[in-house]
Amino acid sequence: MNLLDAMNWRYAVKAFDPEKTVADEKIEHLLKVAHLAPTSMGQQPFVILWVKNPEVRKQLVPHSYGQEKVATSSHLLVFCAKTNLNDASVDAFMQHAASVSGQPVSTYDGFSGMVKGFLGMMTEEMKLGWASRQAYLAMGSLLTAAAIEQVDSCPMEGFMPSAYDEVLGLKEKNLTAICAISLGYRSADDATQHYPKIRLPYEAIIQTV
Amino acid sequence: MNLLDAMNWRYAVKAFDPEKTVADEKIEHLLKVAHLAPTSMGQQPFVILWVKNPEVRKQLVPHSYGQEKVATSSHLLVFCAKTNLNDASVDAFMQHAASVSGQPVSTYDGFSGMVKGFLGMMTEEMKLGWASRQAYLAMGSLLTAAAIEQVDSCPMEGFMPSAYDEVLGLKEKNLTAICAISLGYRSADDATQHYPKIRLPYEAIIQTV
Repeated sequence: MNLLDAMNWRYAVKAFDPEKTVADEKIEHLLKVAHLAPTSMGQQPFVILWVKNPEVRKQLVPHSYGQEKVATSSHLLVFCAKTNLNDASVDAFMQHAASVSGQPVSTYDGFSGMVKGFLGMMTEEMKLGWASRQAYLAMGSLLTAAAIEQVDSCPMEGFMPSAYDEVLGLKEKNLTAICAISLGYRSADDATQHYPKIRLPYEAIIQTV
Repeated sequence: MNLLDAMNWRYAVKAFDPEKTVADEKIEHLLKVAHLAPTSMGQQPFVILWVKNPEVRKQLVPHSYGQEKVATSSHLLVFCAKTNLNDASVDAFMQHAASVSGQPVSTYDGFSGMVKGFLGMMTEEMKLGWASRQAYLAMGSLLTAAAIEQVDSCPMEGFMPSAYDEVLGLKEKNLTAICAISLGYRSADDATQHYPKIRLPYEAIIQTV
């Protein structure tokens, strides 16, 4: 299946088949793709939480406008923005970069100063916006990879972030929930799979100058 | 090349080969992928501007911290958020949905009310954040598709959005620039292609609960 066919095949699944489970290896493949996605200045200011505990998943349902698929789809990922983006997180990043490249950490002094200056100019709210955008880009990579693998997905913004943070213990981890993705295989009974895909006309979205 | 190899192959190109041009058909393929990317409530609150005019591209360089590739890469796309997200834009969307599905527009009354309620609760700044996140998700799809096609890319946040808006005439179109992507083929002289790819450890980004 070519990529355009795969993108046309995918849709936001309303009901997953409760009998069908995606192999963990396939989920790991999608996560590896998201892990390689580019981010602003390479900072990867997010975490992807793979929620494996079924009890925890059930607890999320009432905070997701009752969407059962949060608990019942084969897999659930919650994309979280880091809330502790500061000089210390930049220093840790540069230390890691030095360990990967085998260069002394001082090689990155100029880059480090630039990233610190960029973060230092932002309010916490601006940093959250910036981190969220990077996470969404990685989500775009992951959802595209899922389509290629014929794994069904439903990205969901419709939940209470503060309740997710509470249930998932995110505050202690300096994270906050921004988007969830249910993964699995569509139920044969999900009528929405037969609806025509609605996209604004190509010419309305792709413009030239 | 499998998708993980493609994602490892890609990097944020510093210098493009000025002699190599990407076929327009390939760029159109990437744009079609981005056009099919999912967005919150299907609203596609962004436009992808394909900047073809070389004079206009040159005018963007001084507003891009002097990054010449804005003018010299094979192709330049500017992702823009819509700034007129309101009841009228929702009505237009529902009208389009009805024309695609062949259903009366009243079929969408409940959905329309939900989207209008959602947008109505938000400040202009919140709407811009929401629209930008959707655009970034589509960018993730496009950059992944580019890697698959072995088209090189460099996503760029480093520019003056207000100056881009001015040069590209975006205000009159109710748009504002949020991210640019240069596309082309890497120069053999771009040393950065030989640098090791730096990503935070998989276990640091992918966590489980």
